[in-house]
Amino acid sequence: MSEKSVTPMSEDFSAWYNDIVVRAELVERGPVRGTMVIRPYGYRVWESLQADLDARIKAAGHGNVAFPSLIPQSYLQREAEHVEGFSPELAVVTHAGGKELEEPLVVRPTSETVFGEYMAKWIDSHRDLPLLLNQWANVVRWEMRPRLFLRTTEFLWQEGHTAHVDEADAMRETMWALDTYTAVAREIAAIPVVPGEKTPGERFAGAVRTYTVEGMMRDGRALQSGTSHYLGTNFAKAFEIQYQDNAGALQLAHTTSWGMSTRMVGGVIMTHGDDKGLVLPPRLAPYQVVIVPIGRNELLERTTAAANELAGRLRAAGVRTHVDDNRPQLSPGFKFNDWEMRGVPVRLELGPRDLEGGVVTLARRLPTFEGQGKEQVPIDQAPDVIPGILEDFQAFLLHRAETFRDEHTADADSWDEFAAQVATGWARSLHCGQSSCEDEIKADTAATPRCIPSEAPAESGPCVRCGLPSAYGKRVIFGRAY
Amino acid sequence: MSEKSVTPMSEDFSAWYNDIVVRAELVERGPVRGTMVIRPYGYRVWESLQADLDARIKAAGHGNVAFPSLIPQSYLQREAEHVEGFSPELAVVTHAGGKELEEPLVVRPTSETVFGEYMAKWIDSHRDLPLLLNQWANVVRWEMRPRLFLRTTEFLWQEGHTAHVDEADAMRETMWALDTYTAVAREIAAIPVVPGEKTPGERFAGAVRTYTVEGMMRDGRALQSGTSHYLGTNFAKAFEIQYQDNAGALQLAHTTSWGMSTRMVGGVIMTHGDDKGLVLPPRLAPYQVVIVPIGRNELLERTTAAANELAGRLRAAGVRTHVDDNRPQLSPGFKFNDWEMRGVPVRLELGPRDLEGGVVTLARRLPTFEGQGKEQVPIDQAPDVIPGILEDFQAFLLHRAETFRDEHTADADSWDEFAAQVATGWARSLHCGQSSCEDEIKADTAATPRCIPSEAPAESGPCVRCGLPSAYGKRVIFGRAY
Repeated sequence: MSEKSVTPMSEDFSAWYNDIVVRAELVERGPVRGTMVIRPYGYRVWESLQADLDARIKAAGHGNVAFPSLIPQSYLQREAEHVEGFSPELAVVTHAGGKELEEPLVVRPTSETVFGEYMAKWIDSHRDLPLLLNQWANVVRWEMRPRLFLRTTEFLWQEGHTAHVDEADAMRETMWALDTYTAVAREIAAIPVVPGEKTPGERFAGAVRTYTVEGMMRDGRALQSGTSHYLGTNFAKAFEIQYQDNAGALQLAHTTSWGMSTRMVGGVIMTHGDDKGLVLPPRLAPYQVVIVPIGRNELLERTTAAANELAGRLRAAGVRTHVDDNRPQLSPGFKFNDWEMRGVPVRLELGPRDLEGGVVTLARRLPTFEGQGKEQVPIDQAPDVIPGILEDFQAFLLHRAETFRDEHTADADSWDEFAAQVATGWARSLHCGQSSCEDEIKADTAATPRCIPSEAPAESGPCVRCGLPSAYGKRVIFGRAY
Repeated sequence: MSEKSVTPMSEDFSAWYNDIVVRAELVERGPVRGTMVIRPYGYRVWESLQADLDARIKAAGHGNVAFPSLIPQSYLQREAEHVEGFSPELAVVTHAGGKELEEPLVVRPTSETVFGEYMAKWIDSHRDLPLLLNQWANVVRWEMRPRLFLRTTEFLWQEGHTAHVDEADAMRETMWALDTYTAVAREIAAIPVVPGEKTPGERFAGAVRTYTVEGMMRDGRALQSGTSHYLGTNFAKAFEIQYQDNAGALQLAHTTSWGMSTRMVGGVIMTHGDDKGLVLPPRLAPYQVVIVPIGRNELLERTTAAANELAGRLRAAGVRTHVDDNRPQLSPGFKFNDWEMRGVPVRLELGPRDLEGGVVTLARRLPTFEGQGKEQVPIDQAPDVIPGILEDFQAFLLHRAETFRDEHTADADSWDEFAAQVATGWARSLHCGQSSCEDEIKADTAATPRCIPSEAPAESGPCVRCGLPSAYGKRVIFGRAY
């Protein structure tokens, strides 16, 4: 491990991010430009998010499946908007088994087409609906401006694909996925995302309506953190997904798709981190508590034994605990900095004096509602009090992020206000709804419409940019985005 | 659902297998030749196996990671035997992002090369060892004779990759993985696999020693169900995986790799199934218990309510339970056959007369040690007794498979005995160890050396085929294989 320190976030957010993801051993650049290698510490964050989201997906009646990653190129061409949207990003297999293939295969950028082909086979009657499927998979989209976790040539995600009898049922599903993403982001990742609909210009290629949850990062930019699409009958037409209704008539199914990805790990880093490094929400932290035994020789043996004994009791109380006892070459001070950099919510220091007094020194990664800096906790009581301290820490992170988001979001009713606001955060403004006007805004400020928030008061008036009457009946959130 | 019945196993094993995997909605052929689509019922089996194996892998200190699926073609060429072994099976990406790539990328057939490249970066000192990594991933190997689950162009697996200071530590790891696969196969899949070493002709491309667990299917053929490789310093040399030892000298690391795949789902089907269809071990069954409420109109409403109430109590007792209450168009008899075909260990029938008597009728998928056919169980006691009935069922399947394997395995000391034995099962024979002799045996009988079993008495004598002195110091297991 190098002693080189992390670029302060306040100095250069982008350099801070690139430093921290590598230094904290979350991820590295892969061998092919734009790819990434997710290391155990980073993968564990993803696994915790995945476990929570998967349980919600299953509880709502979806079945997990595994489709092949290689899709015949012709499948994509069956839905015109879809192929237009994805063509520039495709990786294409032209040779396999030592021969040139008759038809090239694309590595899936998303799987609506191949799910569509099989949904058509599996659905005969209205009794087969709704068909609720989900897949955890890797997808490949060739990226020109890659960024670790946020925009990589290959990433991991779940993609839900469902079919329904009508628009009403498909829209219920689309909103269920949006609500679920909102809940996972808030409750697990402590990211207070704003759910809402995308404007037509920002829709998924092939969707009738696209919904999104948008998080605000600590540089004021937005991160699209999950999307849910009502696909209407677009894919049903392209793949002949039909069912016999009650009266025996053939009807097109209405389909949805929705996805959340490893991009969320980047969102966690950029929502909670600071100049010292990562700050991990306890529900996603690989180690919620790290115990550092301190001392020399025989005293170190005793504090190490006590640390391991305490770790056993913490684990029995459901706390993910690590004892830093196999790096004798490093000083306690180095270890403290290292675990702060790696974002561990609670550090316990256990020195000979602590042991003598029957206490451990507890240090939170950040002062919270309840706790300022260091405090002493009786060793015996630690397993009783630490779960509550972790809950407090989790709640504090959400609160802090919510406060930050609200402080960096404001109504903007003039162009000057708008331009100033999107330089450091989000603007809530009225907009005419024309994509040419969206394009001009983007060219001038780099800001795009992030979403038409689900919850916002009814309002209308002139467009903040062009003065034409507003669309959507409420304000749109604009911001620069990842 | 079609009423068409499954080809009896006794008539045509291969047709039975192909019928059953599709009829039971485990899997379907994918859009590209040799690929498969794993459906929810099949994926759930894989998820249960995966959860158990993943917990063992983590408990032994391995960290999960995610490497990219696209590997520069040149990486494979660095280890001569490795590239020779895998070249014919590669799928190659030549175009991406709308351009021809400067260097083609292969879709990973396995990941020793890319793990090797990064292990070299991550390892400096002996303190960094052992490095214990694992990945759950999809891999692509172009198959000329595909078979659902058993040999598909794309499949899911875990691949462990580890680096160690010396041969002794790497061999400990290699044997840990072999023991773990043996335990998972026996304890979870109820497949009494035989662990052992592969002969040199059957080694993994690039390995110094390959170990395997071999299961016997109900047609007497062997299924290689997991492999563990000691790679020596072959990949360490190719990728410069080096460390500084205690004395400051640079040393090559010793590496291992090991994998278990969705092929295991095929193994479960072919180890336990029968003419009626699947038989699933309770630890892998998506539904351990299915309750079928019976009756008409108001009576059906009452039995359905009672079935759902019972299901709630069974779930609270940790039993995966399904109530078949949303297919009013099907008769109880059809449902019974359907769940038998789908391999559910325990079926509960709940009719008006059962309800009146305060009982359910319990039917095991097979008679076991304790239970013959149907019996009546008081509804109140069902959640207490069913977990034990499922354990008994699980133990019975392992016992039955073990008996079958032993009845179809015999010593063969003459060529005639050998040829007769491998026609229906496995032969234990002495062998000279020459690969030309192995090839002749295969050409004559289709049998190959499955493994040199870990546990077997010391023995030597003339080769069963050529009469030259035996190698290995013990008998080798031969059989036809999938």
